[in-house]
Amino acid sequence: MSNKVAVILSGCGVYDGSEIYESTLVLLALDQAGIPYQCMAPNVDQMHVINHITGEEMQETRNVLVESARVARGDIIDIADAKPDDYAGAIIPGGFGAAKNLSDFAVAGADMKVNPAVAEFTQAVHKQKKVVGLICIAPAMAPLLFGEGTQCTIGNDADTAGAINAMGGDHKDCTVGAYIIDEDKNIVTTPAYMLAGRISEAAEGINALVKEVVRRL
Amino acid sequence: MSNKVAVILSGCGVYDGSEIYESTLVLLALDQAGIPYQCMAPNVDQMHVINHITGEEMQETRNVLVESARVARGDIIDIADAKPDDYAGAIIPGGFGAAKNLSDFAVAGADMKVNPAVAEFTQAVHKQKKVVGLICIAPAMAPLLFGEGTQCTIGNDADTAGAINAMGGDHKDCTVGAYIIDEDKNIVTTPAYMLAGRISEAAEGINALVKEVVRRL
Repeated sequence: MSNKVAVILSGCGVYDGSEIYESTLVLLALDQAGIPYQCMAPNVDQMHVINHITGEEMQETRNVLVESARVARGDIIDIADAKPDDYAGAIIPGGFGAAKNLSDFAVAGADMKVNPAVAEFTQAVHKQKKVVGLICIAPAMAPLLFGEGTQCTIGNDADTAGAINAMGGDHKDCTVGAYIIDEDKNIVTTPAYMLAGRISEAAEGINALVKEVVRRL
Repeated sequence: MSNKVAVILSGCGVYDGSEIYESTLVLLALDQAGIPYQCMAPNVDQMHVINHITGEEMQETRNVLVESARVARGDIIDIADAKPDDYAGAIIPGGFGAAKNLSDFAVAGADMKVNPAVAEFTQAVHKQKKVVGLICIAPAMAPLLFGEGTQCTIGNDADTAGAINAMGGDHKDCTVGAYIIDEDKNIVTTPAYMLAGRISEAAEGINALVKEVVRRL
């Protein structure tokens, strides 16, 4: 069986897409472990486009799949076309895109919905007992995707942790270099830039998470 | 004196901006070595915007500084405002942005020009005898920036090497995990994605280059 990992992106840039360092570090850690990967993203418009200098919204429209292709050097597929059978596991890096484009957690909180194609693929991988890793704010999707009692972390932000628990999740506080495992559900999560002040801190937790995911392939 | 390094970006995405992995890996290696850095870019429009799935030009306009801010998580300055005295050295990652936005090498070849603000800053750093590292296609700017006989590498592409030599440079072939030093001029160059087939290969050369740059701060 293939040991290929699906890496689910949500655009290109921390404020409206995938966090670039987190995504890059996931791909690097997988490649250094000799694990093949395939980037994928939903083919939908971004919730909005943010000027990353000013933090203000720009009056333009960008597509999540097209912008995610920047992070993937063009090698990306529409997640709606991805076949769960082809993958041994999945990882979702963070960035606001996970809460704006893969889901609407950033605006809806505990009333959030997950993009249907993202939910279908990720839940199918999970139902096959394969490991799923979620980074930074992406674990906010865990209760909806993987059901009541899913243990996960986004670090220690009380409001976000409360929203996760309100959706039926079981939030565990976690430091930036560590990760949380839900052994029963085979879900691994780490806070990364929910807590990291420096790229080397984010790398510690991400490298640890990818190592754990790889161990479970 | 500060040991801060200037990292000069050219957008966000291999085909019209900074190569994302190269840029991220430079920042990671600097941070892991305990070296502070400041990202900067010219405040100009990109030569064009490329759809990274199809490779085709998109009918929109993006600003190099604003898009580079995605790679910098918002912490970026206009290179025209950067003071060479504040930096102990500079690194320019690759990506087509180095040949389209920092210079026009991609269209003009050996008749290229370098963006005036990029040339002014980089040459001022160099005149203070400080180290400059250039990655991937960025070394194509070396002969114009640092003068006749500058030894550098872009790997082993004969056309690009020929253009560098035509501009007065001294191209040296180099493998993906290695780098070339011009000892006299204090210039360090590595091929990265001019040769790399995998992110872990690019990381080898970039980590080696950053280590050498740090040694020379």
